[in-house]
Amino acid sequence: MSVKTARLQLDMKGDTQIENITKRVQEMVGGARLHAGIVTIFIRHTTASVMIIEDEPGIRADTKVMWDRLVPPDPQWQHNTRNAGETNGHSHLRGHLQGPSVTIPFADGALLLGTWQQVVVVDFDTCARKRELIIQMIGD
Amino acid sequence: MSVKTARLQLDMKGDTQIENITKRVQEMVGGARLHAGIVTIFIRHTTASVMIIEDEPGIRADTKVMWDRLVPPDPQWQHNTRNAGETNGHSHLRGHLQGPSVTIPFADGALLLGTWQQVVVVDFDTCARKRELIIQMIGD
Amino acid sequence: MSVKTARLQLDMKGDTQIENITKRVQEMVGGARLHAGIVTIFIRHTTASVMIIEDEPGIRADTKVMWDRLVPPDPQWQHNTRNAGETNGHSHLRGHLQGPSVTIPFADGALLLGTWQQVVVVDFDTCARKRELIIQMIGD
Repeated sequence: MSVKTARLQLDMKGDTQIENITKRVQEMVGGARLHAGIVTIFIRHTTASVMIIEDEPGIRADTKVMWDRLVPPDPQWQHNTRNAGETNGHSHLRGHLQGPSVTIPFADGALLLGTWQQVVVVDFDTCARKRELIIQMIGD
Repeated sequence: MSVKTARLQLDMKGDTQIENITKRVQEMVGGARLHAGIVTIFIRHTTASVMIIEDEPGIRADTKVMWDRLVPPDPQWQHNTRNAGETNGHSHLRGHLQGPSVTIPFADGALLLGTWQQVVVVDFDTCARKRELIIQMIGD
Repeated sequence: MSVKTARLQLDMKGDTQIENITKRVQEMVGGARLHAGIVTIFIRHTTASVMIIEDEPGIRADTKVMWDRLVPPDPQWQHNTRNAGETNGHSHLRGHLQGPSVTIPFADGALLLGTWQQVVVVDFDTCARKRELIIQMIGD
């Protein structure tokens, strides 16, 4: 049993942009020379999330519409009214509801994803930002 | 320390059906002969989720009502309009918001669930489907 | 590789109260004498959640407003109408949508959180309750 830590940096644009990282995570897991275990993909930010989706243009567009309805941008969020210059109160709320990480089992060095499952980062912020992720693999 | 992988198949009906898998997961953990660790229960699909609830008929009914309000079925989801024959745009959105997995600690071969916590699968799709789950245990 | 199990008890007040547990989790991870791994912070209740937020008063207030809009208290939730004396149907729905746990990678004995990420418990129930959490560390 051992632990392998990898990092991934992304340039994201915000506004519910979605970036597919499945291939990069799979390469990290394959390169770690672990047989079976779990990988936790954790984003080190409060206004972006990691999630698993069927990655096609309709789902990407619907995800943005869903969030604009559920937690709309609003100058009246107290994160914005209490903190001068802040406009991303809705981005924080979306980020903590969607969550910062996913944990995926692997075996024979391959992620045990279903046919349609893809790992993506979604950025809820209001401007472009650099994003850092930890990919922590534990297994034997 | 070692990793044990188990699989579970379910016949689900969709439409926010809930199936309780607590006893089956507990038996897998008990049978793995691991003392303490964590178990990740991961569903290999994008329109169904694993979650922890108090499993009583009121909560099951309320879960369906909540999702029908938050993310309603709608022919106008772009997943439906862009992909001929698709009607489950809302099922995808619900699935990725609720998430594909839960991770639960165990000790002395038993899940460390609280008194009222039950592990369930919820199927958000629009028709009956076979569902496959990975139950990945890591511990010593 | 080894597993370390710690427990944490909190007195919570309900009504979307938020309690920051970052420092206590960090001390448990630091005291476990593990180099690298993951920690799962799991709450053993169905009407409270563990989540990661930027912890400032605006976000705390906005989180309560968001939940009151998305899943409002309502005597008509079936959890309330079917079970005499129950008034916390909305608390259950919020708890299972937000989820009972977070899993965080650590290295060199320190949580790999981003600058603004804090680990908090949010209590959705309608009265004060004692809450118990399991902090399960796996690493080498």
